[in-house]
Amino acid sequence: MSDATRPVLGDGPVCPLPLPDHDTVLLAHGGGGRLTQRLIEELLLPAFDNPELRRLHDGAVLEAPPGRLAFSTDSFVVSPLFFPGGDIGSLAVHGTVNDLAMCGATPLWLSVSLILEEGLPLATLRRIVASLQRAAQAIPVSIVTGDTKVVGRGQADGVYINTAGIGVVRPGVDLAPQHARVGDVVLLSGPLAAHGMAIMSLRESLGFETALRSDSAALHGLVARLLETAPQAVHVLRDPTRGGVASALNEIAAAATVGFCLEERAIPVADGAREACELLGLDPLYVANEGVFLAIVAAEAADALLAALRADPLGHAAAAIGTVTAAHPGRVVLRTTIGGTRVVDMLSGEQLPRIC
Amino acid sequence: MSDATRPVLGDGPVCPLPLPDHDTVLLAHGGGGRLTQRLIEELLLPAFDNPELRRLHDGAVLEAPPGRLAFSTDSFVVSPLFFPGGDIGSLAVHGTVNDLAMCGATPLWLSVSLILEEGLPLATLRRIVASLQRAAQAIPVSIVTGDTKVVGRGQADGVYINTAGIGVVRPGVDLAPQHARVGDVVLLSGPLAAHGMAIMSLRESLGFETALRSDSAALHGLVARLLETAPQAVHVLRDPTRGGVASALNEIAAAATVGFCLEERAIPVADGAREACELLGLDPLYVANEGVFLAIVAAEAADALLAALRADPLGHAAAAIGTVTAAHPGRVVLRTTIGGTRVVDMLSGEQLPRIC
Repeated sequence: MSDATRPVLGDGPVCPLPLPDHDTVLLAHGGGGRLTQRLIEELLLPAFDNPELRRLHDGAVLEAPPGRLAFSTDSFVVSPLFFPGGDIGSLAVHGTVNDLAMCGATPLWLSVSLILEEGLPLATLRRIVASLQRAAQAIPVSIVTGDTKVVGRGQADGVYINTAGIGVVRPGVDLAPQHARVGDVVLLSGPLAAHGMAIMSLRESLGFETALRSDSAALHGLVARLLETAPQAVHVLRDPTRGGVASALNEIAAAATVGFCLEERAIPVADGAREACELLGLDPLYVANEGVFLAIVAAEAADALLAALRADPLGHAAAAIGTVTAAHPGRVVLRTTIGGTRVVDMLSGEQLPRIC
Repeated sequence: MSDATRPVLGDGPVCPLPLPDHDTVLLAHGGGGRLTQRLIEELLLPAFDNPELRRLHDGAVLEAPPGRLAFSTDSFVVSPLFFPGGDIGSLAVHGTVNDLAMCGATPLWLSVSLILEEGLPLATLRRIVASLQRAAQAIPVSIVTGDTKVVGRGQADGVYINTAGIGVVRPGVDLAPQHARVGDVVLLSGPLAAHGMAIMSLRESLGFETALRSDSAALHGLVARLLETAPQAVHVLRDPTRGGVASALNEIAAAATVGFCLEERAIPVADGAREACELLGLDPLYVANEGVFLAIVAAEAADALLAALRADPLGHAAAAIGTVTAAHPGRVVLRTTIGGTRVVDMLSGEQLPRIC
């Protein structure tokens, strides 16, 4: 039993079961035995390689820098797994990194937990894992711990990914929805609705595919520009994902007991997304985004902060889209391009399930 | 629109859509709009209530104590959701807390991320959430951040839960599979196979249900006893979950390039689990556990450490089950009760999917 001394690497003649790309995920890949270990050793560790993960311990042991920590988690169930501008792997990294960034934190470490459906092609898993790693490396953030479960056919839809992240909060920064103040300016870092409309047009085969790409991107660098420009002037950051800008601002309005007044003509919408929204009768304010954020900032610093955003390629289309008002607390009101006003309520119901 | 100013609490006449217990999870509960927020405000926040979660931010901001941090994650897909001795909620807390404990860490904070299947009864979700909170409170550990996604019918099996956890590692403690040394003693904190056989008998309707209960339990207290008794003498801790003791020791044997010699008659097996294993032709060494751990400890401290375990109700059946040997590195060998020896290899294949 020569393989007992080398139970996992499987190179050379001791390899009992190779993992070629045409193979699929088996229930035994989640059983905790030899196939689980081979999946980890042959597919996951080479992709995510770092000293912490190599210890193969039950968790990572990390030397945290001084300061407050930010901790966040998201599960990703997007369908389809691959879409123009990204895939479930890059989205899973960007999503949690962005949640940390919205806390004013520099991302440090991620966990990755996979729920795999029996029958998922290993080649698909390889692509997703490579995308996770590319996205993590670009930030950079280390994937230091993880988990893999397998469920039977029809008990998931290919793969679901959970990431949790830890970051260190910049000194002196204290962001929270409750900190929005009357007179503050609402900045939007980029055009709306690209992610939601890219997924929707792909799912519904609307033929916009070539024009529409998800905006999925890591926003920590753009946030750093803001916080380096005027850390005290930034009161709230929020990325308007599910539910869109409308839901995000309604949540902040409720938390801070303030109102918002938005200028419709100031709100940038992604190329192609506006047309797709019009065709489908959707309002870009309710569509999910994965690469833009809202910043509620002190009025006196708004110009400098807007300039800081625009100096970054990711923020070149940033705009001041409205103000925080004492009128109508808890409510978001839009001044339309034709001069009327309307209440922008929370999203009711569901535009498109499994958008992220 | 009086509900616009109180869009989420839904008490009294402003409540547009109550959430009675006979209702079920809808896709819109995952849409990021009003129903998502009501699920959070009415079902999740009241259960997990704490100041961090109440901020309703994208992540938690935490004051970490000095020292190294442990970070771990696990997703839970156990079927059925409720079983004798626990449920997916308590299991999700214990599992990640135990991973932190195996790193020598005191658990501090948890994230909870739910993937819900459309149609899941809200009453079931309430039970699970209550169980999560009870388990967290008993430790105690704070659930400080979370996420909820909803997938369509047939795209999950009721509910899957991911938890990630952060703990602070005890000073002077350095545990890793690589630290097993020749001459060390293998302690087992309690009897084997209760969790796996409880789930298996329930799933296969074998009629053992009344006798068999999962051992699901938080092990951080028992670990603390060990580390307070002789911190330097504890080299490796590992909870033998999926794949059982056999897979856990094979992993450690490979990581540390040592062998293990186990004494079959010294290995405690849970009441009822031995009989169930015999009936099904299973080896208790391969069955999943959720409330015991292996400790690889210096021989000179083994008696004191065993006594420390036995002084705790959770460790009353603890036993020294074997030793670390220079012979057969990478291999686990069992001396059977009838005096023979056999190699205990990694688990091949899958005994029972979705055991945790």
